[in-house]
Amino acid sequence: MCEANAYLRQGEKEELLLERVDKIIPQGNELYLENIFGQRKTIKGRIVEMALVDHKIVLERNE
Amino acid sequence: MCEANAYLRQGEKEELLLERVDKIIPQGNELYLENIFGQRKTIKGRIVEMALVDHKIVLERNE
Repeated sequence: MCEANAYLRQGEKEELLLERVDKIIPQGNELYLENIFGQRKTIKGRIVEMALVDHKIVLERNE
Repeated sequence: MCEANAYLRQGEKEELLLERVDKIIPQGNELYLENIFGQRKTIKGRIVEMALVDHKIVLERNE
C-alpha cells in the first residue's frame, strides 16, 4: 500500500499526526486528512513537504 | 514504489503533468515537483486533492 505518514512540524520537532494517510484535501486554510483505516483529521495548517517514496508528509500549523 | 502521478485539472479536464512524483514542496504560490527519474517541474499552482492509494495527485494552476 502506498499511503504515507503525516507529521506535524513544530520548531525542530516532528510528531506523528496521522499514520498511513490516503487522502489529503486542502480546504481554505485547513487540511482534511483521511487514512486507510477511515480515521479522519482536520487541522488548520499547510503542507510543508512530501516525500512519497519515504512515505512521509510534513505539515505545519498555520500561525 | 509509492510515488504518485500528478494531474493538472483545468475545468473538467485533467491532464498528466508529471508521472511518478516523489517529492512535492510548496513554495509561496508555487509547487516544486520532482519524480523518481529526477525530472523536476515548478508550477504556479496548488494541491486540490491527493489520493495516495490511487497514486493520484490533482493540482490546479493559480488564477
